[in-house]
Amino acid sequence: MKDTIKNIVEYNDNKLSKSFAFFIQFLIVLSVITFSVETLPNLKPQTKAILNSIEVFCVVVFTAEYLARIYVAGNKPKFIFSFFGLIDLFAILPFYLSFGLDLRSLRVLRMFRLFRLLKLVRYNRAMRHFAKAMLLAKEQIILFMGVTLVLIYFAAIGIYYFENEAQPEHFSSIFDSLWWSIVTLTTVGYGDVYPITVGGRIFTFFILLIGLGIVAIPTGIISSSLTKVVEPDAEEE
Amino acid sequence: MKDTIKNIVEYNDNKLSKSFAFFIQFLIVLSVITFSVETLPNLKPQTKAILNSIEVFCVVVFTAEYLARIYVAGNKPKFIFSFFGLIDLFAILPFYLSFGLDLRSLRVLRMFRLFRLLKLVRYNRAMRHFAKAMLLAKEQIILFMGVTLVLIYFAAIGIYYFENEAQPEHFSSIFDSLWWSIVTLTTVGYGDVYPITVGGRIFTFFILLIGLGIVAIPTGIISSSLTKVVEPDAEEE
Amino acid sequence: MKDTIKNIVEYNDNKLSKSFAFFIQFLIVLSVITFSVETLPNLKPQTKAILNSIEVFCVVVFTAEYLARIYVAGNKPKFIFSFFGLIDLFAILPFYLSFGLDLRSLRVLRMFRLFRLLKLVRYNRAMRHFAKAMLLAKEQIILFMGVTLVLIYFAAIGIYYFENEAQPEHFSSIFDSLWWSIVTLTTVGYGDVYPITVGGRIFTFFILLIGLGIVAIPTGIISSSLTKVVEPDAEEE
Amino acid sequence: MKDTIKNIVEYNDNKLSKSFAFFIQFLIVLSVITFSVETLPNLKPQTKAILNSIEVFCVVVFTAEYLARIYVAGNKPKFIFSFFGLIDLFAILPFYLSFGLDLRSLRVLRMFRLFRLLKLVRYNRAMRHFAKAMLLAKEQIILFMGVTLVLIYFAAIGIYYFENEAQPEHFSSIFDSLWWSIVTLTTVGYGDVYPITVGGRIFTFFILLIGLGIVAIPTGIISSSLTKVVEPDAEEE
Repeated sequence: MKDTIKNIVEYNDNKLSKSFAFFIQFLIVLSVITFSVETLPNLKPQTKAILNSIEVFCVVVFTAEYLARIYVAGNKPKFIFSFFGLIDLFAILPFYLSFGLDLRSLRVLRMFRLFRLLKLVRYNRAMRHFAKAMLLAKEQIILFMGVTLVLIYFAAIGIYYFENEAQPEHFSSIFDSLWWSIVTLTTVGYGDVYPITVGGRIFTFFILLIGLGIVAIPTGIISSSLTKVVEPDAEEE
Repeated sequence: MKDTIKNIVEYNDNKLSKSFAFFIQFLIVLSVITFSVETLPNLKPQTKAILNSIEVFCVVVFTAEYLARIYVAGNKPKFIFSFFGLIDLFAILPFYLSFGLDLRSLRVLRMFRLFRLLKLVRYNRAMRHFAKAMLLAKEQIILFMGVTLVLIYFAAIGIYYFENEAQPEHFSSIFDSLWWSIVTLTTVGYGDVYPITVGGRIFTFFILLIGLGIVAIPTGIISSSLTKVVEPDAEEE
Repeated sequence: MKDTIKNIVEYNDNKLSKSFAFFIQFLIVLSVITFSVETLPNLKPQTKAILNSIEVFCVVVFTAEYLARIYVAGNKPKFIFSFFGLIDLFAILPFYLSFGLDLRSLRVLRMFRLFRLLKLVRYNRAMRHFAKAMLLAKEQIILFMGVTLVLIYFAAIGIYYFENEAQPEHFSSIFDSLWWSIVTLTTVGYGDVYPITVGGRIFTFFILLIGLGIVAIPTGIISSSLTKVVEPDAEEE
Repeated sequence: MKDTIKNIVEYNDNKLSKSFAFFIQFLIVLSVITFSVETLPNLKPQTKAILNSIEVFCVVVFTAEYLARIYVAGNKPKFIFSFFGLIDLFAILPFYLSFGLDLRSLRVLRMFRLFRLLKLVRYNRAMRHFAKAMLLAKEQIILFMGVTLVLIYFAAIGIYYFENEAQPEHFSSIFDSLWWSIVTLTTVGYGDVYPITVGGRIFTFFILLIGLGIVAIPTGIISSSLTKVVEPDAEEE
């Protein structure tokens, strides 16, 4: 009996386990969509009832799956406190915690439901590659994230001195300038804040010329690291 | 006779076939321009008549070419249901389907005319490289598209919780937040929606720092894959 | 005599020729700044007079240099019709053509003065590398420019169908949609035009996911090509 | 005694020196945050007093550290005029210079306090890599910065001719056009200035197609250079 469950839940080499994995993936996507639809304003009571039924069904299945995983695990505490074990728990916990309580006040707790989405990680061999690549380049990424943060801070201080007097409502402090700094150096450029003084524009000119190269470095590190990890695997198959 | 047509239509090694290929390419570009000009508002009846004549001429030539291709094909059904066979069909079909019917109501069908543009693929050796590179990196691209989609979804949920109360008209549901999410993480940043709360701005700060690296990965994969495919070919010539 | 001029004008291995090259570079930058300052509105007559004197001086020196280059060239017609020969000519021609004529009406001709800036190319060994790299990757760049253009066109047609009815003033024809298309796919995103319908937003979502990878390819090709060309040279020195 | 101080200040191989380095890093971050908080408008007098105390404490510690570093340095003048020696000095100098003087009028001098942030460089082995990589690619970066600047200038002149008459308030001179040019070619696209004429839009279309590749080159050079420098080090450990 335990072996049968183990076959279904843990491995991916037989038909039954593949169907099971597919079913769970479908439920994850379904519950993600349900969660999104629930946020729509002016929903009808019937729609809410249907969404709630789907939610209950998903949680019941996820709970059963979670208990099955604990049951078949060799080292039970190790599984429970593993990354995926905790995600499995957090994916169902918010539902039980809100039972019998005022749902409105616990609204923030629902954010934990996002963890359900992370379950997708388990079923995707490819995503393990991503995790591996991130681990390989971890040091470098932290390093250049640091350089990027220093640059963003410098840009914020600079623009604060140039624009504070001309636009006190948009650049009231360095914290406000940081918002401009991140939006500009990532080239998002919403257009809600931008320099209007000649000095501020010349400063932006140089910060963009120097800064874009630096901000792009973490991207390059992640890309090259991913290529290294993915490459050998592609040959195996 | 069949051999002569085959030489003209299928190969690119003699003068006649090259002229033919060039002529078809010119007609494709002409019909694309015609199609664009037709969408201009307040066109004069004479202009419309001229555009229509060009359209009829293009469709007649394309139909003749399509029939010639079927005629010279070794395995006729295989050609008809091949990618390029279907594109050739869809490039001329909308014209015939709208004959004798009310053109206004079939307007949506005209979108199929876009397929005519895809015919350019056949005549360009270089574009086959692109298709080859896409095939080579197909698995990896789908994989990281997935990661990107998950990230976009996470960003949307996060900003929804931070901005929903402050800007209910812009972040009314997770679907509205998704629009913000895609526009921000691709760094387009139209400026129609952006966070205004302190929490939302700090969240955007971190999502941009982490997210831009991830969103850029598919780009890196396509680039490296294209380099691999194009490289050996450059040596051959 | 001819050898002395040749040494000064054509080579960069002695002190005199280096001073000469530096002097010409300085004049180019000066005339570029002069040109920019002249466009400022509400200039005083004295300022205009000074700017004009600088302009006359620059043109006289450039003319002398141009004649010297023709004088020392081995194959005179070859030099005159070479890329740099023509740039040297275009850099001084607009000044002479406007003599005795109404300057206002010839305003457009002044755009040729931009070519003066291109003279910078001659004096910079590094820029020759850039030209070399562009030549090496010419075929690939044209190819993917084509793919990018097709994609931009597709995006424009798609958004036209989705947004034309909702925003007839912004998406009045495919030509207007092309403006949206280029601004969006290059991630500039001014925010002057953006989709507001649900269909248009979903379409933008997919176009951005697919499109950004394709648009980034020419960038990658240029980068890699430049790396190849610059690398060996760095070892030589 | 001198050896003990040397061990603490200059090396990173024993517990005491590591604690010291960590303490200094903490103070740097603290003084950076203090500096940012000070810019907030409408601060209470108590808050200002606390911020001032922290500032005094940081400066005292930094001064002691600076004098210790001079004391243990083998070649004292070499240290004082080295890059990090000067940063250490500039990090504390503004505080002493403003003593007994009117702080308001010396506000600009406070910008030198930013240099304190640069002290972070000393304590981070990884940042030395960054400096090394920048040195390796210095020539190439300057070169392509030049190409980028020329392109930005060309784009500014072009848009000036197309948009000056239609939008004299936004494109009043080439200097105003330069602002548009940098914001567009870095794809920031605030949306404060954008072309509205057909000619200006077509010009932008081509500038973006050509320009984005060129602007991205310095980014590529920095990335590849960083990869080269970081790679061997990773093997050492």
